[in-house]
Amino acid sequence: MLLNFTHSTDTICATATATGTAALAVIRISGTQAKHIVSQIFTPVRSNNHWIHEGYKLHYGSIHNNGSHVDDVLVSVFSAPHSYTGEDSVEISCHGSQYIVQEILKLLLTQGARLAKAGEFTKRAYLNGKLDLSQAEAVADLIASSSKAAHQLAVSQMKGNYAHELSDLRAQLLHFSAMLELELDFAEEDVEFANREELQKLAHTILARIEHLTNSFSIGNAIKNGVPVCIIGEPNVGKSTLLNTILNEDRAIVSDIAGTTRDVIEDTMIIDGITFRFMDTAGIRTTDNHVEQLGINRTFAKIEQATIVLLLVDALQSTSLIQQQIAAIQQRVQPHQHFIVVVNKIDLIPAEQREKHIETPLAAQLGANDAIVYISAKQHKNIHELTSLLVAKTQLNNCGANDIILSNARHYECLVNAADSLQTVLQGLQQGVSNELVCIDLRHALHAIGEITGAISNDETLGHIFKNFCIGK
Amino acid sequence: MLLNFTHSTDTICATATATGTAALAVIRISGTQAKHIVSQIFTPVRSNNHWIHEGYKLHYGSIHNNGSHVDDVLVSVFSAPHSYTGEDSVEISCHGSQYIVQEILKLLLTQGARLAKAGEFTKRAYLNGKLDLSQAEAVADLIASSSKAAHQLAVSQMKGNYAHELSDLRAQLLHFSAMLELELDFAEEDVEFANREELQKLAHTILARIEHLTNSFSIGNAIKNGVPVCIIGEPNVGKSTLLNTILNEDRAIVSDIAGTTRDVIEDTMIIDGITFRFMDTAGIRTTDNHVEQLGINRTFAKIEQATIVLLLVDALQSTSLIQQQIAAIQQRVQPHQHFIVVVNKIDLIPAEQREKHIETPLAAQLGANDAIVYISAKQHKNIHELTSLLVAKTQLNNCGANDIILSNARHYECLVNAADSLQTVLQGLQQGVSNELVCIDLRHALHAIGEITGAISNDETLGHIFKNFCIGK
Repeated sequence: MLLNFTHSTDTICATATATGTAALAVIRISGTQAKHIVSQIFTPVRSNNHWIHEGYKLHYGSIHNNGSHVDDVLVSVFSAPHSYTGEDSVEISCHGSQYIVQEILKLLLTQGARLAKAGEFTKRAYLNGKLDLSQAEAVADLIASSSKAAHQLAVSQMKGNYAHELSDLRAQLLHFSAMLELELDFAEEDVEFANREELQKLAHTILARIEHLTNSFSIGNAIKNGVPVCIIGEPNVGKSTLLNTILNEDRAIVSDIAGTTRDVIEDTMIIDGITFRFMDTAGIRTTDNHVEQLGINRTFAKIEQATIVLLLVDALQSTSLIQQQIAAIQQRVQPHQHFIVVVNKIDLIPAEQREKHIETPLAAQLGANDAIVYISAKQHKNIHELTSLLVAKTQLNNCGANDIILSNARHYECLVNAADSLQTVLQGLQQGVSNELVCIDLRHALHAIGEITGAISNDETLGHIFKNFCIGK
Repeated sequence: MLLNFTHSTDTICATATATGTAALAVIRISGTQAKHIVSQIFTPVRSNNHWIHEGYKLHYGSIHNNGSHVDDVLVSVFSAPHSYTGEDSVEISCHGSQYIVQEILKLLLTQGARLAKAGEFTKRAYLNGKLDLSQAEAVADLIASSSKAAHQLAVSQMKGNYAHELSDLRAQLLHFSAMLELELDFAEEDVEFANREELQKLAHTILARIEHLTNSFSIGNAIKNGVPVCIIGEPNVGKSTLLNTILNEDRAIVSDIAGTTRDVIEDTMIIDGITFRFMDTAGIRTTDNHVEQLGINRTFAKIEQATIVLLLVDALQSTSLIQQQIAAIQQRVQPHQHFIVVVNKIDLIPAEQREKHIETPLAAQLGANDAIVYISAKQHKNIHELTSLLVAKTQLNNCGANDIILSNARHYECLVNAADSLQTVLQGLQQGVSNELVCIDLRHALHAIGEITGAISNDETLGHIFKNFCIGK
């Protein structure tokens, strides 16, 4: 039931691998002319023209431009429909020089291909029925995934788990809708094809399912974009030492392998497969100073955005000063947020003083859900206890691999719309409004759910989805 | 005649494509266990185990880690010796997420592969006789090539053109050396197996050839690293406008396609397939000011490094002032350098004044090999005339595709050493020194030439060559 939209079949090309100097680069070509275009610039070493018809094979040969040699390449052919896009496709694996990649792209353009737009290969895969829309979106998430949890989420969405479930529920709803529409045709005869009670039951089932999914959105969003952690601490309390220490404890393995991006090191960290975004803020002090007040307001704003609020204090400060700091933050932390107090430099406090003068008074001040950890960032003491606590607070690793978690903002919006329409349907049934009106609301709900998997789609939606892809996918 | 060195056959793996988020990434595995290791983590969709034996085919399937799905991939198998390295090799084409790439690499390491060192795949290709050493070096140049000329140079070296020529000459020299050594065995009998006249002739032939090659090194180096152009001009004379204008005229096509690196835009430009490195300097004025003198000394140093010295002057200045500037630079430009005077803002000079007051007096001042161009950087006037002049002065595009040009500093050094030894051989023959001494110098020459193609090589040389490769090649 795809609506009208442009389904172009002209031949597109793009680099599929990342930009930069490397051993290899891969150029993708897809469309009706893909094989013909490549055959104009590629000569296999074994000189025959059968290679064009030999799908899923690698052909070694050379790319040439008016007789001058451009590169030795491996070419693979994927004949429609057995390709990613469902169209005839060719992949050229060449040396990873940007000059060579550009030369080959120019040659392809000269032969009649055009440069692909972002996500255009995957868009074609969707239009040719190789993927549904939520699976196509999962491809982008998969590529962007930088942590284990985000990867699992994308893999699960690609498998189509929750799209299948939604499709099932939608099919049942569609049945009722059809029955109701049929009743409209026999309006004068007062027949009832659709069992109102069952329709209400189904609407409630779907609403419950939608609620479950939309509730999981905050988790899904945290997995995809990182769990926001607000660190509050005065300049000399050891914030950067703490961040570096966490970094060293948990990222050693990843850092050994090339590809760790700068962003990850700077303020995002992956602990136990979960991404945390650490937001650095100044401490909070009561002040009359206008400039300082601005800084404090910024801290308050960061606290609001956080899932976990982490207050770092110095064990060498007086206990009453520490208690003041805790109290100042405590009144800002909302019930849905997690509050962790981290007492640093604990190695500098004699053991006999620790319990009586620090631990006991602080414990008395904390709420039941608040947590406190005593560490030495410098001595790497209790750091693991802290990171375990961070992971535990997110509760993300409690989700099994088969749990269905919503992570896509577009899907969230569709589901909220569907829930609104279903609520109106239920109200309408209760209030005995006319069938026509119930039918309209049902159609809205069907439309909203259908937009997730692409059963319903339009150019604008597709344009919006695929523009966030990388070129070449 | 390979000397002893470590020829490991353990299984290595690395990402072959550039780092970054993209549609695809390719992981390479090579070594005796390559197929076995991949078979432990990969399951093809068509479930049989024949895929391992099906070379040059693409196998679609999934990578898994203890039952959990990691990614859908395409796997290609290259059985020894029909692979790049000459060993059993496998390429895994996965989604271009850095997380996925790292997970797959970790799995490969767990199964017994190790991460490849820089250039290790190509080193193995060399050790297995798939490439000679100069061809292996050309692979690195090919990947790094960012201009048409550099690309052609690398392609020519990869084809082995000049290595073949050197190997021929070396084989002839080797014959004489063997004859001379044989004479040593029969020293008491005073026989002469080696015709001294022919040996001298051959030495002269090789010396001439080496001279030709070493002379071409400055061209080859310019192609590879860019032609250094020193731009001299006072701050308000329009240097940056000129550079931007050149950039826009000649790089429009390349800039349209993704992958243009920042460096290229900033101060390196490719014009007509030739890379130019523009070095910006202040003008030269006679001065007593110490600080200004330092700036002038820096300008002098840049002039010395340049192949082309470009003086940019302002047409609105008095002709005598322009003449002073020209004279100041003229005395610094060496015979092997090219001097171009560029008169900017020519659009602001009335046509009737131009010839009499500017062109005629300036032309009189210039030497036969100096050039002068009248431009308006702002109005894009005569810019193409200037860029054509730059290209013509380099004479790089006069080299045919088959001209043999030396671009590798290591080869240059080997050839200089070989020439030294051959000169000593010739002197020895003239002065009638003992055969033993002639033999030693001949062996030095043979060794030096042999090092280029790798007929003679050792661990240190190999280590030095391959450490400059990218990982994964």
